Amino acid sequence: MAKELKNLTKRSDNYSAWYNELVVKADLAEQADVRGCMVIKPYGYAIWEKIQQELDRRFKETGVQNVYFPMLIPKSFLSKEAEHVEGFAKECAVVTHYRLKTSEDGGSVVVDPAAKLEEELIIRPTSETTIWNTYRKWIQSWRDLPVLCNQWCNVMRWEMRTRLFLRTSEFLWQEGHTAHATREEAEERAIQMVHVYADFVRDFMAIPLVVGVKSATERFAGALDTYTIEAMMQDGKALQSGTSHFLGQNFGRAFNVQFVDKENKLDYAWATSWGVSTRLMGALIMTHSDDNGLVLPPKLAPIQVVIVPIYKGEEERAAFDAKLGALADRLRSKGISVKYDNADNKRPGFKFADYELKGIPVRLVMGGRDLENNTIEVMRRDTLEKETVSFEGIEDYVAHLLEEIQENIYTKAKNFLDSHIYECNDYEEFKERVQQGGFFLCPWDGTEETEAKIKEDTQATIRCVPFDVDQTNPGTDMVSGKPAKYRVIVARSY
Amino acid sequence: MAKELKNLTKRSDNYSAWYNELVVKADLAEQADVRGCMVIKPYGYAIWEKIQQELDRRFKETGVQNVYFPMLIPKSFLSKEAEHVEGFAKECAVVTHYRLKTSEDGGSVVVDPAAKLEEELIIRPTSETTIWNTYRKWIQSWRDLPVLCNQWCNVMRWEMRTRLFLRTSEFLWQEGHTAHATREEAEERAIQMVHVYADFVRDFMAIPLVVGVKSATERFAGALDTYTIEAMMQDGKALQSGTSHFLGQNFGRAFNVQFVDKENKLDYAWATSWGVSTRLMGALIMTHSDDNGLVLPPKLAPIQVVIVPIYKGEEERAAFDAKLGALADRLRSKGISVKYDNADNKRPGFKFADYELKGIPVRLVMGGRDLENNTIEVMRRDTLEKETVSFEGIEDYVAHLLEEIQENIYTKAKNFLDSHIYECNDYEEFKERVQQGGFFLCPWDGTEETEAKIKEDTQATIRCVPFDVDQTNPGTDMVSGKPAKYRVIVARSY
Repeated sequence: MAKELKNLTKRSDNYSAWYNELVVKADLAEQADVRGCMVIKPYGYAIWEKIQQELDRRFKETGVQNVYFPMLIPKSFLSKEAEHVEGFAKECAVVTHYRLKTSEDGGSVVVDPAAKLEEELIIRPTSETTIWNTYRKWIQSWRDLPVLCNQWCNVMRWEMRTRLFLRTSEFLWQEGHTAHATREEAEERAIQMVHVYADFVRDFMAIPLVVGVKSATERFAGALDTYTIEAMMQDGKALQSGTSHFLGQNFGRAFNVQFVDKENKLDYAWATSWGVSTRLMGALIMTHSDDNGLVLPPKLAPIQVVIVPIYKGEEERAAFDAKLGALADRLRSKGISVKYDNADNKRPGFKFADYELKGIPVRLVMGGRDLENNTIEVMRRDTLEKETVSFEGIEDYVAHLLEEIQENIYTKAKNFLDSHIYECNDYEEFKERVQQGGFFLCPWDGTEETEAKIKEDTQATIRCVPFDVDQTNPGTDMVSGKPAKYRVIVARSY
Repeated sequence: MAKELKNLTKRSDNYSAWYNELVVKADLAEQADVRGCMVIKPYGYAIWEKIQQELDRRFKETGVQNVYFPMLIPKSFLSKEAEHVEGFAKECAVVTHYRLKTSEDGGSVVVDPAAKLEEELIIRPTSETTIWNTYRKWIQSWRDLPVLCNQWCNVMRWEMRTRLFLRTSEFLWQEGHTAHATREEAEERAIQMVHVYADFVRDFMAIPLVVGVKSATERFAGALDTYTIEAMMQDGKALQSGTSHFLGQNFGRAFNVQFVDKENKLDYAWATSWGVSTRLMGALIMTHSDDNGLVLPPKLAPIQVVIVPIYKGEEERAAFDAKLGALADRLRSKGISVKYDNADNKRPGFKFADYELKGIPVRLVMGGRDLENNTIEVMRRDTLEKETVSFEGIEDYVAHLLEEIQENIYTKAKNFLDSHIYECNDYEEFKERVQQGGFFLCPWDGTEETEAKIKEDTQATIRCVPFDVDQTNPGTDMVSGKPAKYRVIVARSY
């Protein structure tokens, strides 16, 4: 492992290769045997579980309940909401048969042609259609509203170019689907959920964000508005990390979900949907990690502290086991997850490299001299700084250090983001600089033409109209020279 | 709702109809738009989440880690383990294409014939094949073992006759897959996991069980031994509620998973797999519930206590809100989940019927006179007994009552099970009595012929060779008259 670690490509040499290698070497995930799919390994899944648990708790605090809808969707459902089917990728897995049979020669299995479905079924790329077809049965009166459901599940989009966590054919996600009696309530919910995402991503994942609303072109198929959280990776590219959609009455109409309102009139229900996926794992890795491996925020690290004794002989080992085993227990009683590694089949240097690669936030090492002096060596993964401190009170020291690391990696990433957001009003300058990465705050006239030209010229897209940017006097559009409607964030993206 | 509730079929009239109606009326699940699939509704899903959380905790205590493997499996994988493909249902969903396109007339979507897969993909009916194909890459040495993985996911088996929770085409489950260096260790793990299931089902679900090992005929396809937990429903039929398989080296061989053992020799890895599914929801409902609706064990009830004030006018309502709101908080601080229902748009009688239907373990009702006397009415759902007690110390009273209910419904079900296990040595008697339900403890000669005859004559099957039955002198086989090898549990089953 120590040897393999040395082979990790440096970010400055090839950021993309560094990412691909790190995901595999840190035991997070690997390519599956099925094209474009991934195996999420125990260490990667443990991080995803922590993401799930905290998000789920925050959803439920807002009144959301979990449900489960079928993964197969009748093909005809997809054509009911016209914009949805038009805008949405048609690259999806199609189930056409429901039985295999043994081949004539008995040596293999073949599809039974007699077991052809009358109507093909699609593996859900997202579940608006099937859920709204069911909501019709649940919703008759304003008293049945709001409906606030969420599901954690797998979805499938037949992607041509895939990368672990960032874009895979099958991925895990949550999809929230809410129904409301009024436009205002639905819009509020859509905005509320993008803030739930933003707060979680900042507080737990230590990832700073730009939060805003998408341009019409970049909206979800069928949405009236799409809210987004945009993170910046270390190469300056944007990673769309979560979206929340105000869907208006489009799905209510398409699936005839009508209710009697308080004035006893029939109206269509108003909708939102919102989701984050295993793509967040990609954001996490690319935001914080370095050439030595992962850097994990303590709040998401499956193991927050590793304790390694460096001993000679069984007697010293026993002394360490007693002293450090008790320390591990004291740390655990503070809610800190600890691994005590006294294994003798791996050299300390190997262990150190492995724990750096895995991004364990704090490493405690104790050797014979520390035992004499009642000291312990503390290394923090974020800065790789080491210091020797008194063993007395080390629990409080570590607890405080974990908080400090959480804050520090956020601050570091926030400084990176802030120093890579550029105001730009000149298109020539923009075209040149955007290739080096960064978010460009530019005046935009609000037209699709301008947006299309920027994309064609530079591959960069309008990421969002940011919430926290003053939009009075947005200036002059850098492409068309017309008066701008908004100042928008433009960037190349994943 | 109160009116609908009256329409719940009585168990004695039609047990099957009672079950089907109850699942829907208690808002647990409903038929989906896709044949044989279900929508798990918020209340049903909340129970499933509690099952998941506790089981997951118990798995992790034994060293198991969670992972995620792809839901699609190349068709050719299924033919690699001969017994597995032979014994396993070939009724599965087959993906043949990966793209839709807009129809010629533009009005619908059709499958794009150009997007045909070279090799068809199967939606996992279970994941031994794809997981063992990956384990080959993970396992080289005895140092890599054991591998102890589990995943919570959806699976698909194209069932012809489906019933909510009991048998659906798509269902949710967990599947554990472990790899070991020795036969002994794998066998121990398979047995350990059936006991993890049994302990959980008894302690949390309050369902008594017979635990044992399956006959060769009833084993999982590819297993050397299948361990099972068998529950008895109120109609006396068996419900197989979880299984754990010792798979020997079958998958190790089929997928060439070899490792270097401690003696530096190559050997194939030994395997287990084990799973429980949303079928447990069916076991839960059918074991405890009654003609008034669900009866839930407090440890799995999403709402353990409901508090209903019966008030006249706003002033009294405000007094109740203060007093009962504070009580709700005190109960919550004891870790009890509480709903305080002061809604004025539903009559108390309606609320009571609804909470009975939903199986809320404890109902607290307070009216004007209670307010004067500082008393409160307590109803327990398991026995429907009501009593009026002092408001003083009601938190402790309720906490204790919840424990008592948990114990009581287990005891009730255990008494039912015990009184419906019959020793039977006479085949004529067996044939007559087995149609009325119950578990029959019968001497069996161990042959497939006898087993097949019993099934043909009565539809009953050998559920298991029970662990806790003395097998010395098992007697004479009731069908063949030959010396018996074991005493086995025979019953009709779901």
